[in-house]
Amino acid sequence: MKDLTPLLAPRSVAVIGASADAAKSGGILFKNIKDGGFEGPLYPVNPRAATVQGLKAYPSVAALPEAVDLAYIVLPRERVAQALAECAEKGVGAACIIAAGFGESDDWGRAAEAELKAIVARSGIVVAGPNTVGLVNAERRLMGSFVPFPTWQDGGVALFGQSGLFAGVYILQVMSQDAQRLGVRLSLAVGNKIDVDEVDFLAFAAADAKTRVIGLYLESLRRPRAFLDLAREVRERKPIVVLKSGRTREGARASASHTGALATDDALLDAALRQHGIVRATDEDDFVDCLKALSMLAPPKGRRVAVLTTSGAVGVLMTDQLSEAGLALADFAPPTLEKLRSVLPAWQPASNPYDFWVAIDFVDHRAAHEIPLEAALSDPGVDMVLALLLAVPNADFEGFREVFASLRARHPGKPLALVIHGGAGVRDRWLADLEGLNVPVFRSSSAAVRGLRALAVAAHGGNWRG
Amino acid sequence: MKDLTPLLAPRSVAVIGASADAAKSGGILFKNIKDGGFEGPLYPVNPRAATVQGLKAYPSVAALPEAVDLAYIVLPRERVAQALAECAEKGVGAACIIAAGFGESDDWGRAAEAELKAIVARSGIVVAGPNTVGLVNAERRLMGSFVPFPTWQDGGVALFGQSGLFAGVYILQVMSQDAQRLGVRLSLAVGNKIDVDEVDFLAFAAADAKTRVIGLYLESLRRPRAFLDLAREVRERKPIVVLKSGRTREGARASASHTGALATDDALLDAALRQHGIVRATDEDDFVDCLKALSMLAPPKGRRVAVLTTSGAVGVLMTDQLSEAGLALADFAPPTLEKLRSVLPAWQPASNPYDFWVAIDFVDHRAAHEIPLEAALSDPGVDMVLALLLAVPNADFEGFREVFASLRARHPGKPLALVIHGGAGVRDRWLADLEGLNVPVFRSSSAAVRGLRALAVAAHGGNWRG
Repeated sequence: MKDLTPLLAPRSVAVIGASADAAKSGGILFKNIKDGGFEGPLYPVNPRAATVQGLKAYPSVAALPEAVDLAYIVLPRERVAQALAECAEKGVGAACIIAAGFGESDDWGRAAEAELKAIVARSGIVVAGPNTVGLVNAERRLMGSFVPFPTWQDGGVALFGQSGLFAGVYILQVMSQDAQRLGVRLSLAVGNKIDVDEVDFLAFAAADAKTRVIGLYLESLRRPRAFLDLAREVRERKPIVVLKSGRTREGARASASHTGALATDDALLDAALRQHGIVRATDEDDFVDCLKALSMLAPPKGRRVAVLTTSGAVGVLMTDQLSEAGLALADFAPPTLEKLRSVLPAWQPASNPYDFWVAIDFVDHRAAHEIPLEAALSDPGVDMVLALLLAVPNADFEGFREVFASLRARHPGKPLALVIHGGAGVRDRWLADLEGLNVPVFRSSSAAVRGLRALAVAAHGGNWRG
Repeated sequence: MKDLTPLLAPRSVAVIGASADAAKSGGILFKNIKDGGFEGPLYPVNPRAATVQGLKAYPSVAALPEAVDLAYIVLPRERVAQALAECAEKGVGAACIIAAGFGESDDWGRAAEAELKAIVARSGIVVAGPNTVGLVNAERRLMGSFVPFPTWQDGGVALFGQSGLFAGVYILQVMSQDAQRLGVRLSLAVGNKIDVDEVDFLAFAAADAKTRVIGLYLESLRRPRAFLDLAREVRERKPIVVLKSGRTREGARASASHTGALATDDALLDAALRQHGIVRATDEDDFVDCLKALSMLAPPKGRRVAVLTTSGAVGVLMTDQLSEAGLALADFAPPTLEKLRSVLPAWQPASNPYDFWVAIDFVDHRAAHEIPLEAALSDPGVDMVLALLLAVPNADFEGFREVFASLRARHPGKPLALVIHGGAGVRDRWLADLEGLNVPVFRSSSAAVRGLRALAVAAHGGNWRG
């Protein structure tokens, strides 16, 4: 197993092909790292400039004052092998090769990729790529992606991608969207995966104390047996979410021209993931939703869910979805039913799903929400609470943040997930109020149910403590 | 079949229980209608006020100067039956009963609901509700919902809901979200469905010239045979999307306490919908996505899709999803491949999925997008085009709106759908640029594929012309 520390947690960084031109990949990537505030030494390598974006430039890798931990190589494909060889010669610990046009393309590219592999084999240098957007380490403030990035807040999620999506634009969206940010700590895009693979990454993330949840986007498994053996062991302590494409014959063919990957038997993989309690996501949104649930919530004791809803229709939809996801509606205990009845008119039976809306018309809006949520979270027969709130002035109340902060403080070990539908005004305020409380908000009933299902899958049989 | 014209397209409206208090349902609903600018006469009925929100109030239905087409009844449940009887006596055409606490609740409620049904039976008055948020007709500027609403732009979608969600808060979100608005023309929430049902609504919407797509949220079917017979005929001309909950045993039980509905055999219904080419949505988001696709796009000639993507990973995900949805990747014709090659470096093979990103590095950003999109839309072997764009400065280009306006103008009959991932800046501008061009933008790869699948299902065997 390769040690990925120089790649993923480098003390010093060089950017080979760093450019003053902010429209070029080498310019954007360098600017991201510089503006992100990477704490160690940062060296631009560029033979045609004395300085790059205000920093002294070096004409070659050989001319660098030290053998850096990590060198990004942002050059046309023709010049990559020589740069990598120079890195190996200098004693650089790891390289991240951005250029595309290797194994996924033509004969020249396949031959050049073989040459890169030969350099790796004889030198032991750790390589991510080629054909990648880069890698990010939020704790070290290393924003090494060629997608323009703001600095991230560190979080508990480590991401591995056989693609730039999760170290690039999509994560940009996830980190900056109107809804909640996903707390991403580490994101590595390996592209053609000529060296570092999912097994190396999994071992690194498992050992990284601050990584709490691991997400992997895969198109192929280079070492399926080793991956599954390690994953089975790691998921006992940290939940793992896999988004695997190339499921179908057509998808596998598309994957081959994307990253040159060979197909993995999907049915076998699926069965193994299921057996090992590894969450499998269905698409990019579901991947982020499952990671959100797992990074914010503790493992549930069981599969019994309380549904509290301001829309009866969504309550019924959620009930269908929970049942289809292998979760169950909880039976409320008598004290819970008693508390629910206290906020309802006599004609409305207390049940699961519970309807906030009827209570909103009967008691004050805060009590209509707080009393049932507290009752459900207190019920020993309830393992998880799922609530749909409608963000409209006639359901709004003062002290929204206070209510949820206090519910979380009193019941830190019981998962509470929300869906908030409604117009922008109230909704945006509620979302801001929930910041930092670890109450995940999902965009739809089925997204939330899939998030809860991920909790149940990850908790099943493991020693995950959240 | 009941004629729903007085209910859904009234010339005059009364609000029984109209209130000056903007926190009460009777106050909000009345204010919505008044502020929305309903064009016909609007009468508040309130025995304890001379005026309501500036309009002369009437003490009773009997005192109204005319037998209005539609009366909203916004009273506590105890006073509803008498108000309905007075409407029937006066000759009012239709009533929309907001109050809850009838068949879905206790013995008193069930008895009261029977009384309402008796009034309907002996008078012929058309009734929506009880237990509903109201109904909206955008063309008539009738914003008759107790959820605070802005005025809507009229559109081609007619919605029926056995719940308030789609005439209430969720539609508020859909109409005001950052992404694209759904063009909703008509939204009726029938709640307990004591009179007007999905068959009546379907007949009305089918005959309404400006309705182009029909969406129904159902928990039960009151007349399954009549519904399916009519739907089979209507969907030849207008696509129908059904979101049916209560699919599972648990869901059916939850539905009974929501709207007092009896279960429908879901497997039989599902088979019938499938056989008749009626689109079935999976949740509230999917419902809106399918309606968006069907209201913006023409029916495709077949199932062959061109995938153009700025993310190779999403290209692979989409390929899997298309294959699983019964759609196929198109084989590009030689002239199409030729045009794709013209914007790619020699080492990159032209294929489906096509990768914008490689072209973006090779030619100017506009050409990298426009030439492949034009080529795919021109290819007779391509029935639909699905593109994933990454909204980042290094993929942005001037003339974004012009490019898409011209693609739509040249290929109006070929569906073009987008997914746009990326940070808020560029993304918001692109979304604004697409306004009015009938290019639907979906939030994820699977949402887009489900939208295209809805087109294929609706087009199958019908005479739908878009």
